[in-house]
Amino acid sequence: MPYVNIKVTREGVTREQKAALIAGVTELLLQVLGKSPALTHVVIEEVELDNWGLGGLSVTAFREQNR
Amino acid sequence: MPYVNIKVTREGVTREQKAALIAGVTELLLQVLGKSPALTHVVIEEVELDNWGLGGLSVTAFREQNR
Amino acid sequence: MPYVNIKVTREGVTREQKAALIAGVTELLLQVLGKSPALTHVVIEEVELDNWGLGGLSVTAFREQNR
Amino acid sequence: MPYVNIKVTREGVTREQKAALIAGVTELLLQVLGKSPALTHVVIEEVELDNWGLGGLSVTAFREQNR
Amino acid sequence: MPYVNIKVTREGVTREQKAALIAGVTELLLQVLGKSPALTHVVIEEVELDNWGLGGLSVTAFREQNR
Amino acid sequence: MPYVNIKVTREGVTREQKAALIAGVTELLLQVLGKSPALTHVVIEEVELDNWGLGGLSVTAFREQNR
Repeated sequence: MPYVNIKVTREGVTREQKAALIAGVTELLLQVLGKSPALTHVVIEEVELDNWGLGGLSVTAFREQNR
Repeated sequence: MPYVNIKVTREGVTREQKAALIAGVTELLLQVLGKSPALTHVVIEEVELDNWGLGGLSVTAFREQNR
Repeated sequence: MPYVNIKVTREGVTREQKAALIAGVTELLLQVLGKSPALTHVVIEEVELDNWGLGGLSVTAFREQNR
Repeated sequence: MPYVNIKVTREGVTREQKAALIAGVTELLLQVLGKSPALTHVVIEEVELDNWGLGGLSVTAFREQNR
Repeated sequence: MPYVNIKVTREGVTREQKAALIAGVTELLLQVLGKSPALTHVVIEEVELDNWGLGGLSVTAFREQNR
Repeated sequence: MPYVNIKVTREGVTREQKAALIAGVTELLLQVLGKSPALTHVVIEEVELDNWGLGGLSVTAFREQNR
């Protein structure tokens, strides 16, 4: 039953890293709540740096400022 | 008022299929809850196969394993 | 694989209406995209009238204004 | 068309504050993108302190640690 | 703590407009709820016109009909 | 930067289990993607059994049928 949505910035997350996130979250829900992996859905969404804001700035601007 | 978000894997959903999903969900909310179509928003999000996990595997890996 | 999230205002949606929404959306995804009901998750979220805004007003205020 | 979802911790946000958030976001989308208020939906979701995590801790634990 | 998700149609929103949305929402949450900008995350998601439905039609069809 | 949303059925998830989910997801994102825990937000949402559908049935009905 669990549905997990992971939003991260679009910065070249590899297929292997995505697989590790999916496996890790599914295992965590099995260990902590006994949720069946067969019913656990995980969706990873990658967000452009211009489209993610923190501290009132986009990540693009935030990083330029803190270079 | 209803807002409906439909997440499916990115596998060539056609414009006609999207239109059918939008029309169908809007009609369903009108029939079941009397919600006005003019206030019903439907958003379809298509997710890469590597980015959707089920059973601890990405859909890509899940399908390779079950070929 | 589909995950469908339905947000509606919290206004006494009955168990039967929720069941009709779940059945209707699942059937629609089967008919339009051939998605297996066993993999189709539907989540209904009910939102307080003060917490939903339209036209710059909460639904509470919007309705008071249009009584 | 815009749909804005605001998630905040459940800490007694008042009706007036919710109205101010709804009005403010709707005005912002009108000013920046010319979006019609009549088509702008805003949903505010309040999350229990135990249910929001930051720095690996729930907000409850995070605040106890930093008292 | 706030997490704000803004969904708009994919119609050439510029970097500057995104920055203005991020700054505006962050300022609004600071003014209304006293939320620290350093903890305020804003994510902007752009949705294809075929993927957004209103009034039972996709935005593409809706606009063709109302040309 | 990561924002993780975990939706589970409302079935008495304890404070300790929530803390374990938050810690586990934050650690996973640190290990796999090197994401700073201080920027990792996790939100757990608990959904009523009548409000979660699978196989075209609500979880309530699904479990009654499979008792």
